[in-house]
Amino acid sequence: MSSGITTPQGFAAAGVTAGLKASGTSDLALVQNLGPTYAAAAVFTSNRVQAAPVRWSRQVADGTLRAVVLNSGGANACTGEPGMADAARMAELTAAALDCPVDEVAVCSTGLIGERLPMPLLEAGIPAAAAALSADGGTAAATAIMTTDTVAKQASHSGPGWSIGGMAKGAGMLAPGLATMLVVLTTDAVIDADALQGSLSAACRRTFDRIDSDGCMSTNDSVLLLSSGASGITVDAAEFTEALTAVCHDLGQQLLTDAEGAAHDIAVEVVGAGSETDALEVARSITASNLFKCAIFGRDPNWGRALAALGTTDAAFDPDRVDVSFNGVMVCRAGGIGEDRGLVDLAPRAVHVLVDLHAGGETATVWTNDLTYDYVKENAEYST
Amino acid sequence: MSSGITTPQGFAAAGVTAGLKASGTSDLALVQNLGPTYAAAAVFTSNRVQAAPVRWSRQVADGTLRAVVLNSGGANACTGEPGMADAARMAELTAAALDCPVDEVAVCSTGLIGERLPMPLLEAGIPAAAAALSADGGTAAATAIMTTDTVAKQASHSGPGWSIGGMAKGAGMLAPGLATMLVVLTTDAVIDADALQGSLSAACRRTFDRIDSDGCMSTNDSVLLLSSGASGITVDAAEFTEALTAVCHDLGQQLLTDAEGAAHDIAVEVVGAGSETDALEVARSITASNLFKCAIFGRDPNWGRALAALGTTDAAFDPDRVDVSFNGVMVCRAGGIGEDRGLVDLAPRAVHVLVDLHAGGETATVWTNDLTYDYVKENAEYST
Repeated sequence: MSSGITTPQGFAAAGVTAGLKASGTSDLALVQNLGPTYAAAAVFTSNRVQAAPVRWSRQVADGTLRAVVLNSGGANACTGEPGMADAARMAELTAAALDCPVDEVAVCSTGLIGERLPMPLLEAGIPAAAAALSADGGTAAATAIMTTDTVAKQASHSGPGWSIGGMAKGAGMLAPGLATMLVVLTTDAVIDADALQGSLSAACRRTFDRIDSDGCMSTNDSVLLLSSGASGITVDAAEFTEALTAVCHDLGQQLLTDAEGAAHDIAVEVVGAGSETDALEVARSITASNLFKCAIFGRDPNWGRALAALGTTDAAFDPDRVDVSFNGVMVCRAGGIGEDRGLVDLAPRAVHVLVDLHAGGETATVWTNDLTYDYVKENAEYST
Repeated sequence: MSSGITTPQGFAAAGVTAGLKASGTSDLALVQNLGPTYAAAAVFTSNRVQAAPVRWSRQVADGTLRAVVLNSGGANACTGEPGMADAARMAELTAAALDCPVDEVAVCSTGLIGERLPMPLLEAGIPAAAAALSADGGTAAATAIMTTDTVAKQASHSGPGWSIGGMAKGAGMLAPGLATMLVVLTTDAVIDADALQGSLSAACRRTFDRIDSDGCMSTNDSVLLLSSGASGITVDAAEFTEALTAVCHDLGQQLLTDAEGAAHDIAVEVVGAGSETDALEVARSITASNLFKCAIFGRDPNWGRALAALGTTDAAFDPDRVDVSFNGVMVCRAGGIGEDRGLVDLAPRAVHVLVDLHAGGETATVWTNDLTYDYVKENAEYST
């Protein structure tokens, strides 16, 4: 059975080895929308330093896409005009192989920043990927975009007669500001480009934008959504957004669970906030604290570090009313000492931190990982 | 010869063991201003979650201070009304021992957040510290305020007939937003409280406020400056500010060099900025990047991570014009690939990263450390 991006009808995908990675594993993926319609939506990194493929894809993702070509083994970021030409050439090679307009081909790259792509390998690889396209190529594509990921990440949702599929890669440099990884989503629902964009923006805002693995925002992040309309079924926009959000949430949690060197997946839920903005700011301040993240690695319910982090925000709250619970144990009550911290079990991978600001009725959750030896090891050794 | 806070005339200090630390090392310090004048200035953490001693000292540090009592082994933070009463009691005990007004005694505490202080130990310890006060007690006081510090930190400046002395403690949770550690500064120059405060604010803004070891802002940070006027020499405010800034810079660099688990001291200097605010924002974005800090630990001049960080700022710059040098080698030129990164030697502890935005004539430097296994280890194990 087909999975991920080839779950919906009207899509073909492939993943092949072009030779970009020293490891010799697959490194080039292709996704083709077979129609009958070609509506598309996109969300890109808000980093002002944007990789060449992001600059290219921003130009072409204006409501219609026939294909996406993605490579691992090189980010093509900070490569200047030659890098822009390389990204354009990847689109040209794809358009030629698929006989479609070049301005309907998006390009995504991931890997080390500041090095040119080995274009001769892509000149040969892209036609090979096109020849390998198949209706059950989703897993091959999801595998080819992996970098330090240890598993391929796919998700899908099945509605009555229609579906959504998705793949993602990302194992570090996951931070808010949008997208923070490469994601391709597909659907065979009949839905126009404006509605697609509205659904994608809404889904990203509540999922990928609320993951903060290490506070570092990438130069290459892209989330692309392609609709083939092949099911012939028109789907209500609200229903579609809800389903898309579920798929994005699923992929986002897979990204966190596979984040570089992480030993715990941490959900920081803020309740009782005066506004959703306040709830988000408080949650983000805690998920960004290295000291807090080290404490979780050490299985220490160190609520003082959570309070120190939220004290740096502008959110409305009274420090003397804040409650903080770790895995259900309220270790901080009214800004002071609560239950015995020895009652908290932080051995399980999943950690739930609940912060009640007692300042209103709004809420938000941000997901992060702990800070571990292995995170440092992977990121100290990655490019050397 | 006396050093640190007892370098200036008119001060006595002590450091004793009250028994707050399991290690049995000294943990209680006292600083007394013997006059003839008692002008004082203070800067406190901007964290909204403030420890009881910070709340107390904010109330009393209104231009006049006779003494400062400092303990390690417990932060007295997030301890509610009982914690406030404990801080006040520390001031009362000190005032009684020194026969001075209680509202002229500042209190500083450092250690674990969220636990009450063992007051019976302080009831006995503070009179003992008062009995130990001496004109060469600076080093004993600087030693008693250490937590995970591995060395006592002192500095001094000698002007013609007058001097400034200082001591500091801090080995983690060093971040901008002010102060970020405990610091006591003394001078025997004749200078009024308003001028003292102006000099202290100016000095902190360019020194302690530009250190960012780990992005985490403490609940207890305090910088106190006491003037005895004992030299009888009136010093020009600008001259005093310059000397004070030098002493604060010296102490700040000592804090960084002793920061928990650090293997490199990193100066991120931003030049060519449109404003000092822009230069600071860019420098802070890089010093806050875990990926960048891991790369330095791995001796990797990963300029892509520096560019990814500065791309998250609102500073004025064109990504295609930015230059980045590591220890004098311009590895990124005009936003793209520059000199061979193999030419960069990151073996020495001191690392200089120079970012030229080519957007103006302003500059700023922020200092940080690398992110290492030992940082994670110390902060995962600290309170368990």
